[in-house]
Amino acid sequence: MELFLILVEPKYAGNAGAVARIMKNFGFSNLVLISPSFSIADEECRKYAMHAQDILQKVKIYKTFDEIVEKLDYVVGTSSIESKDDKHHLRKALTVRKFAEEVYKMDGKIGIAFGREDYGLLNEEVKKCDLLVKIPTSDEYPVLNLSHAVCIVLYELFLQKYQPREIVLIDGKEKEKLYEFFDKLLDAINYPEFKKENTKILFRRVIGRAMLSKWEYHTLMGVFKKAIQKNR
Amino acid sequence: MELFLILVEPKYAGNAGAVARIMKNFGFSNLVLISPSFSIADEECRKYAMHAQDILQKVKIYKTFDEIVEKLDYVVGTSSIESKDDKHHLRKALTVRKFAEEVYKMDGKIGIAFGREDYGLLNEEVKKCDLLVKIPTSDEYPVLNLSHAVCIVLYELFLQKYQPREIVLIDGKEKEKLYEFFDKLLDAINYPEFKKENTKILFRRVIGRAMLSKWEYHTLMGVFKKAIQKNR
Repeated sequence: MELFLILVEPKYAGNAGAVARIMKNFGFSNLVLISPSFSIADEECRKYAMHAQDILQKVKIYKTFDEIVEKLDYVVGTSSIESKDDKHHLRKALTVRKFAEEVYKMDGKIGIAFGREDYGLLNEEVKKCDLLVKIPTSDEYPVLNLSHAVCIVLYELFLQKYQPREIVLIDGKEKEKLYEFFDKLLDAINYPEFKKENTKILFRRVIGRAMLSKWEYHTLMGVFKKAIQKNR
Repeated sequence: MELFLILVEPKYAGNAGAVARIMKNFGFSNLVLISPSFSIADEECRKYAMHAQDILQKVKIYKTFDEIVEKLDYVVGTSSIESKDDKHHLRKALTVRKFAEEVYKMDGKIGIAFGREDYGLLNEEVKKCDLLVKIPTSDEYPVLNLSHAVCIVLYELFLQKYQPREIVLIDGKEKEKLYEFFDKLLDAINYPEFKKENTKILFRRVIGRAMLSKWEYHTLMGVFKKAIQKNR
């Protein structure tokens, strides 16, 4: 599966630059512009792209939306307007998260199209899309800046591939050891007998929620051991 | 729980404006600036804010990070640098999605701090944070534009509150009715007997994945009925 990001008739060079940057931030590289009102060599465009000049250098530019649609296997439109009514199919949309979950099952060349800064995609263009994607926003002001819309779509796509670095958590045995030392500490400091039980439970709850790493476990154990010795 | 968005020493007026806009897009309103290099009355700031001028008008400005930290119950830092090592606690971070899932369980005034466009948050500032949040990005170019970082954090927070409009899907009975009419259609068009079984199964799979709404069901049933009559 190969992804293409398509900006349809963008007006501001800064937006194209910002889109190039966010593409590189999330590891995407195929940018397509349809009849932009600027040149990608514009200072403004290059400034906003920051360290994503390579993406600008290989931008593909077409005159019409149809030219790129012909080259793709699937065309995905984005819209901030959603059909409120089951009967109007044109702007019925998947949420961007649902789309991200599904897209990697697809094959071939997939283009994701973003409309003009002011008018979005025209109905003519939406009709040519196989699928429409919507970014949930506040009803009060639903229209996102172009590069912000791209940002959210690419973020969701990126997360589908991203594996967070695993922190090695402590196992059950270590947890018991920690509770044991906490109990010993309570004894060592002559903690009031009638409060002990509740405090032990409280400590268990806190540690349960804290999801300790091995390193944190060893550090805390060190603290308890020292405190117990000191109070013996 | 009350959320405050804090930009620490932002340099560019356009970024503050873009942040105000994205806040309104996702239904947030408390913006705090720490020693900005510009005035929020700047043309550039107001231009990028678009229809979020109300958020700019009630911006709170402080000289130092400490002044706002004192007023908050929790301070959350954001960072693109994550500690690669369990032993270094300072920049150990939750992912933004995990953070969004947890934050609504918290109570009180919570500030989310974003650092400078070039240097992010300083170690001094990170130390004062109760929690650190990281936006997963490509290793090749992890540094997001300031307003894009805000965009993703607010998007994740918004999704926790957002209830997508439910489309009424067809029930099992209606699905069976649709299959029945598809079978009748195959008969009506004299579809080759040896292919029928496979084609019926294929149709079931397609409809299963398509998750039809009531309206789509009635429309398709209309088509099938017409086609059956025509071929009788």
